[in-house]
Amino acid sequence: MEAFFKLKTPTEVFHIIDGFSAMDEEIISMEDALGRVLSTDLTAPEDLPDFFKSTMDGYAVQTRNTFGATESLPALLEITGEISMGESEKIQVNSGQAVKIPTGGMLPEGADGVVMVEYCSLLDEKTLEVSRAISPLENTIQPGDDFKRGAVILPAGKRLRPQDMGVLAGLGFSQVPVFQRPKVAILSTGDEMVPVSQNPRPGQVRDINRYTLGALCRNMGADPVHMGICADHFEPLREMVDDALRAADTVWISGGSSVGTRDFTLRVFETLPDFELQVHGISISPGKPTIIGRSGAKPVIGLPGHPASALVVAEIFMTKMLRTLSGIRDAGTGIHTVKRAVLKQNIPSSGGREDYVRIKLVHDGERLTAIPIFGKSGLISTLVEADGLARIDMNTEGLYEGDEIDVMLFSHT
Amino acid sequence: MEAFFKLKTPTEVFHIIDGFSAMDEEIISMEDALGRVLSTDLTAPEDLPDFFKSTMDGYAVQTRNTFGATESLPALLEITGEISMGESEKIQVNSGQAVKIPTGGMLPEGADGVVMVEYCSLLDEKTLEVSRAISPLENTIQPGDDFKRGAVILPAGKRLRPQDMGVLAGLGFSQVPVFQRPKVAILSTGDEMVPVSQNPRPGQVRDINRYTLGALCRNMGADPVHMGICADHFEPLREMVDDALRAADTVWISGGSSVGTRDFTLRVFETLPDFELQVHGISISPGKPTIIGRSGAKPVIGLPGHPASALVVAEIFMTKMLRTLSGIRDAGTGIHTVKRAVLKQNIPSSGGREDYVRIKLVHDGERLTAIPIFGKSGLISTLVEADGLARIDMNTEGLYEGDEIDVMLFSHT
Repeated sequence: MEAFFKLKTPTEVFHIIDGFSAMDEEIISMEDALGRVLSTDLTAPEDLPDFFKSTMDGYAVQTRNTFGATESLPALLEITGEISMGESEKIQVNSGQAVKIPTGGMLPEGADGVVMVEYCSLLDEKTLEVSRAISPLENTIQPGDDFKRGAVILPAGKRLRPQDMGVLAGLGFSQVPVFQRPKVAILSTGDEMVPVSQNPRPGQVRDINRYTLGALCRNMGADPVHMGICADHFEPLREMVDDALRAADTVWISGGSSVGTRDFTLRVFETLPDFELQVHGISISPGKPTIIGRSGAKPVIGLPGHPASALVVAEIFMTKMLRTLSGIRDAGTGIHTVKRAVLKQNIPSSGGREDYVRIKLVHDGERLTAIPIFGKSGLISTLVEADGLARIDMNTEGLYEGDEIDVMLFSHT
Repeated sequence: MEAFFKLKTPTEVFHIIDGFSAMDEEIISMEDALGRVLSTDLTAPEDLPDFFKSTMDGYAVQTRNTFGATESLPALLEITGEISMGESEKIQVNSGQAVKIPTGGMLPEGADGVVMVEYCSLLDEKTLEVSRAISPLENTIQPGDDFKRGAVILPAGKRLRPQDMGVLAGLGFSQVPVFQRPKVAILSTGDEMVPVSQNPRPGQVRDINRYTLGALCRNMGADPVHMGICADHFEPLREMVDDALRAADTVWISGGSSVGTRDFTLRVFETLPDFELQVHGISISPGKPTIIGRSGAKPVIGLPGHPASALVVAEIFMTKMLRTLSGIRDAGTGIHTVKRAVLKQNIPSSGGREDYVRIKLVHDGERLTAIPIFGKSGLISTLVEADGLARIDMNTEGLYEGDEIDVMLFSHT
């Protein structure tokens, strides 16, 4: 099999990831909707706001009565009443009349604008002096100014932010249709692996990937399903992957950093129903031995075993996979926030592959500077020290001190 | 009271917010630790890794046996065994010997480096030909390379990211000491307010701030405590604030957009134990009528009633307040991600205050462009359309089309 596959470029991999489908829809309560992704366009069931209201403390008037008014030649109006908040009072404003109104108050019948209190003075209890002309609709919000009944308020694929929650609340939504959160089965292979709760004997290591990959899923709004640790043997791994595929919407195996085990992962995937191998190796460093396939509609992924490599691959590719499964179509600002920074040191790179180098960002006066963190790629401490990653194109031989570079911040820190 | 207070500048307000203290400590399980903030420096209880390991598939050797080896003059070594993953085998590597080792395997006694399998060939089952010299420690990780026992692995004030979780897992932490999550009592005032579940009569509006402010708290890792809606009357508001102060670590009242109600909020605050008024009005737009005070150690906040204004003020100042209460000391990349973009349209501004203008970001070829969203500040739809805010300094008269400006993205979208 291996012979038929050549390394894919990151761009090809992103394209393959785009080919997966979003999850099914579910209806959830507004109380749980923050951060969830709309599965259909939502339209306004009513005008927002649904009444003609004042945006200022002042007096509701017929605006033509104020035309030409100035400080030296004020308009005189008769005060005929006062609007209370939250009430629609049966007061009619006729020509020559004014009704006191608070911010947010509903305009009385006949009025078409509000004079701010700053331009009003009382001659007596019933007589108002207006020292400025206002134009029709001034200092008001009309029904539907926010959203007209039937208008699309939020599109499918939108991840709900606080202000989006506000609009839905304002329109009385108690439930919203969203894409289900992807369940991600996470399993680690390796005869050397022990659970975190266990004291490793010499030669053994704790299962770090369970925590890093699970945390990345949570940060992306997905639900990790922890399958545990599997020894490097074909049959137990096949059984665990089988269970994982039933329990989740995508299966991520990390481990098998040795040549023999990598083959296990692929051989196990090949036993899955409707399996199609799509990526067998990516031309990046770290992360070359990554496998991406599908069993029916479900992505099945083989990640490197080194925790640092696995997390870098997940940061670059699996964040996009989770966005695709989650149905996010929010082009807006992309998955990763990118910061421009001045590189403090040369970064050499060999051609023919994309390098992702860990970067620490440091403010140097006004400038943001990027300090590459070298060191063995197997060390997770290098990721703890880093704020993000810099990509080195496969057609360059590296980046130079003083270059302005883009640093892709870790998702959602 | 009002007479004694002049508007504070945003910088003064940030300074006042810095004066609040972080929450108390609690000990939580690692399972719940993602996104939480460490309350003390954590040190490594053991070396990570805690054994001498290979980073490559290859052969463990005494490196001096390879010195001078080349393709034309390879070193010949006797293969005396093989290391299994997860085992510390009692194999001794003597001069002239080699032991097969997988990536992540524990180096056998006597070996001080690993020759990659690519530079090895087998002459027969027992004889290895090495075609390249390696230096001592090459292709290995030594005990403590990630973290040495006793070293600070993560500092107090660090918000835990996936990689931080990984290091803690790798070192066997099952619990971590963190700052408690701040509880934020949220209450809305206004005779016109009805709960979202209720159909507003003409002149009434649904309580949007409960959702927008609650969502912002959640996004910042705080727990909203919803107190409900209070009519604009002194005594019921005083009682509700009293309850709120007992139930939470900070109290946020939104509403009272009319002059009379704003005074209620402050008068109620003045009845609280050890109340100190710190901010009564900020020189920004929107958000001028904001109140910040403290009752003992707890911040008590009066926000504007307009949902859009309340959310902008919360985005600018309350995100910082929540970071302070949460104990985040992560200078790194700041609260808000800032993007440089080219302004598409003039934005006028009056001096003497900072303006925060809603901005939509649009990719225009390679360039990111900033489109200001004007429209009445009472409309929440303008925030739904926006990706972030642009700040207009109080000493300028606006920003000009073609200017490169900084757009502060909404926190955590």
